[in-house]
Amino acid sequence: MLARFKPLIDHSEGQLFLSETFKIIVEEVLCKGTDVTQKVCDWKEPEELAWLLDLELRATGEPQHKLLERVKDVAKYSIKTSHPRFFNQLYGGVDYHSLAGRFLTEALNTNLFTYEVAPVFVLMENEVLRGLRQLVGWTEGDGIFCPGGSTSNMFAMNLARYQLFPEVKSRGLWGLPRLTVFTSSESHYSVKKGAAYLGIGTDNVIVVKVDDGGRMIPKDLDEKIMLAKSQGTVPFLVSCTAGTTVQGAFDPLDHIADVCEKHKLWMHVDAAWGGSVLFSKQHRHLMKGVDRANSVGWNPHKMLVAGLQCSALLLQDTTNLLRRCHSASASYLFQQDKFYDVNLDVGDKSVQCSRKVDCLKLWLMWKAVGSAGLEERVDKAFIHVRYLVEEMKKREGFQLLHEPEFVNVCFWFTPPSMRGNEKHADYQERLAKVAPVIKERMMKQGTMMVGYQPLGNKVNFFRVIAFSPLLSKKDMDFFLDEIERLGNDL
Amino acid sequence: MLARFKPLIDHSEGQLFLSETFKIIVEEVLCKGTDVTQKVCDWKEPEELAWLLDLELRATGEPQHKLLERVKDVAKYSIKTSHPRFFNQLYGGVDYHSLAGRFLTEALNTNLFTYEVAPVFVLMENEVLRGLRQLVGWTEGDGIFCPGGSTSNMFAMNLARYQLFPEVKSRGLWGLPRLTVFTSSESHYSVKKGAAYLGIGTDNVIVVKVDDGGRMIPKDLDEKIMLAKSQGTVPFLVSCTAGTTVQGAFDPLDHIADVCEKHKLWMHVDAAWGGSVLFSKQHRHLMKGVDRANSVGWNPHKMLVAGLQCSALLLQDTTNLLRRCHSASASYLFQQDKFYDVNLDVGDKSVQCSRKVDCLKLWLMWKAVGSAGLEERVDKAFIHVRYLVEEMKKREGFQLLHEPEFVNVCFWFTPPSMRGNEKHADYQERLAKVAPVIKERMMKQGTMMVGYQPLGNKVNFFRVIAFSPLLSKKDMDFFLDEIERLGNDL
Ligand SMILES: Cc1ncc(COP(=O)(O)O)c(C=O)c1O
Ligand SMILES: Cc1ncc(COP(=O)(O)O)c(C=O)c1O
Repeated sequence: MLARFKPLIDHSEGQLFLSETFKIIVEEVLCKGTDVTQKVCDWKEPEELAWLLDLELRATGEPQHKLLERVKDVAKYSIKTSHPRFFNQLYGGVDYHSLAGRFLTEALNTNLFTYEVAPVFVLMENEVLRGLRQLVGWTEGDGIFCPGGSTSNMFAMNLARYQLFPEVKSRGLWGLPRLTVFTSSESHYSVKKGAAYLGIGTDNVIVVKVDDGGRMIPKDLDEKIMLAKSQGTVPFLVSCTAGTTVQGAFDPLDHIADVCEKHKLWMHVDAAWGGSVLFSKQHRHLMKGVDRANSVGWNPHKMLVAGLQCSALLLQDTTNLLRRCHSASASYLFQQDKFYDVNLDVGDKSVQCSRKVDCLKLWLMWKAVGSAGLEERVDKAFIHVRYLVEEMKKREGFQLLHEPEFVNVCFWFTPPSMRGNEKHADYQERLAKVAPVIKERMMKQGTMMVGYQPLGNKVNFFRVIAFSPLLSKKDMDFFLDEIERLGNDL
Repeated sequence: MLARFKPLIDHSEGQLFLSETFKIIVEEVLCKGTDVTQKVCDWKEPEELAWLLDLELRATGEPQHKLLERVKDVAKYSIKTSHPRFFNQLYGGVDYHSLAGRFLTEALNTNLFTYEVAPVFVLMENEVLRGLRQLVGWTEGDGIFCPGGSTSNMFAMNLARYQLFPEVKSRGLWGLPRLTVFTSSESHYSVKKGAAYLGIGTDNVIVVKVDDGGRMIPKDLDEKIMLAKSQGTVPFLVSCTAGTTVQGAFDPLDHIADVCEKHKLWMHVDAAWGGSVLFSKQHRHLMKGVDRANSVGWNPHKMLVAGLQCSALLLQDTTNLLRRCHSASASYLFQQDKFYDVNLDVGDKSVQCSRKVDCLKLWLMWKAVGSAGLEERVDKAFIHVRYLVEEMKKREGFQLLHEPEFVNVCFWFTPPSMRGNEKHADYQERLAKVAPVIKERMMKQGTMMVGYQPLGNKVNFFRVIAFSPLLSKKDMDFFLDEIERLGNDL
């Protein structure tokens, strides 16, 4: 009888397992995983990997030593995104203070919805949002952490729509005129995903032209807005980008703000990637005009290395729009007869119910290095990129798409056999095949990782992202040598 | 010159900080935080807490010892959700294998969007989803982990809409007839939030009546669907609940499936809370008929103690509906000329871009205890609840709303001074004030946490959630004693 009421978890056994896992994490992920003499990835074909991992879930449990092997295997076969030679995505690197914050977040295991269950984090999120808003140039406002920049973009879309037509919340889009959104051809795909998800439809996302550097052209924006109006639709949102995903371009926010003002449109700045330049006195001019926006999305999990996920939506609004737009006022969670100020129950500002605590890791990192330390990281990334670009210019076969504005360096690599043949009819077709082959070779050898993609009429080119605080000059030299080594025989 | 290219992070210093944090986590969160002689919460007024935490973000960084104090403070003032006397939410407790998986996930810091950057997790998520689907009764199908059950419910809504009217993705809701959703009056508020967010509108969520136990009444559903049709709307989704948030009721899925079949509607089962009964041979009958659903949302972060966030949407569909509905086919991420099977790039199944890895913690826990171990946890929770209910019946002043179907026990506590006065005019009004006062006292003393809420015409009652694997008989006895101690003088 008593056994039925005994706790099912043995703390000392559990804590031992956790300690052993911690050791494996330090050794495999943090030491080996950031060691340039070790591989970035240990490529396996899916069938083989599935077999190695023995993924099947069974009726009976396994002994601790077996489970620790599994922990090791997961670490071994996972990509080392903290490795200095992981140039593949807009995230990477590691910051130990942030990581400590993340472990603590996981251990505390609470939800950011009420002050009751998250007193520390309600106040902390508020303070971190305030700090970010200050960098935007706002002394007041609102905001929330979202599960990713895509969600931030979608929240902005929902807010813009609600502000113009509050009845949409109860009645839906029926009865409203057709709404249109404006964004550049190089903006993040989440704008279109958002339009589809929110019932607006991708056809109602009007694509604005970009200049050679990938920046939205305000004149084209203005014309497209007027055209859309003349066709009977109601423009309600311009979603600009500060740091585009592929080219790292900054839309000219100040000019766009003029257009938005003229047409009275909500201006959203998707600064998921570029927002971090706001820490830098030297580079924040790239976002001049951002303080005129209605909302800004910013992902500290990218350039600031805060760790996935960390994405803030910042608002200039002081009218509680976020809560009015998203609230459902559930009486089981957001009781109004609580003994504390129920405005501290921030959960109803989101469309989520459970919401992960994403502020602690950023807060702890910020406390550790200060705004000045974060500024230094941003400035160094620009210095690294400058170095990389100058080195590329010294070497044959590296052709930049254009001078980078930010820390994305986009280039084609032309193998020796193709050099001088730029005018040949099949040159572009052959060039398009170079990057995928180099990528396959680098993945299979595991020496580094970098992404490639086509863009508009430009065939496959590499996009190298150089911002990790673990990066050194050697890694950039290695990068260039390695591209040559892998591609010279093509 | 060289300093400009030196890495900004010192690994040994960083790893030392991480180790020290790990020690604090074990001591403060896992040892003290689960020790019944320690407080569940250390209540502070917001102003005082803000002052204690010194939240402000400054220009300069702080020394390591100071930062470790901050780590300690965050732990100290946070709610101990793993504490056996945290009865406040549908999450709580701790599982060390899951926690180990969460630490590893954080350290590996990758995104679940391509096989390239998440080879282990693409395969693992697939296997975990397969395991969950098997419990639903499906040998085939699809699915995805979402940032919470609310998102799972919204995805289901978007899928149902897209299946009926695929053109909605490009054209939006304009041109479509008014769509209606059906859900019970006790379903989770995310159904309404979703309808607002997706442009459908909360007015188009038709609320179906529940019986005394809080279960949807299929006959009322059928009638409401016919009425909605007769009013010219197009019903497209029934969102039922398996384990309602407050009362823990299970909608009669089999009967609802008949109604859905008759009207050809998408049947979604929100089993965020109740889904875990599927592990139990003894209790899975509560969800009889679930295999007839089109989609099931299930949060292993609740009853299974997998840790926040862990929420799966499961689909019976085998036509790639999820990808067709949500994809944007971004060429920079989901290149089609990769050297491996691009179907492994699962990211386009989501409206998210970055997506946290939520499968590892569940996988590791499942491997550790097996399906049999998870079954045992579910069965024990029912045994605990049975004990609690029987003890309540033995004591004066505890009045159940009804016999619990699941592990939510809803009850009023009537202080001695009010007993026998049930017929008095102000009885309900006075009763409504009892729970908030007891709650305030318990928070300020920090001895335990339990939630209360009103529901329909029922005034404030307590909802105690008893499922944590750390729970013992003593904790339940304590719970009852403590309610009496805190409320007897009211
Ligand atoms: C410019 C831009 N906006 C938005 C996003 C989406 O952010 P998330 O991946 O956090 O959803 C990205 C992702 O790379 C991005 O580059
Ligand atoms: C029945 C039910 N559905 C959905 C949800 C929402 O899940 P989440 O909090 O993960 O968004 C909850 C949350 O408690 C719930 O109880």
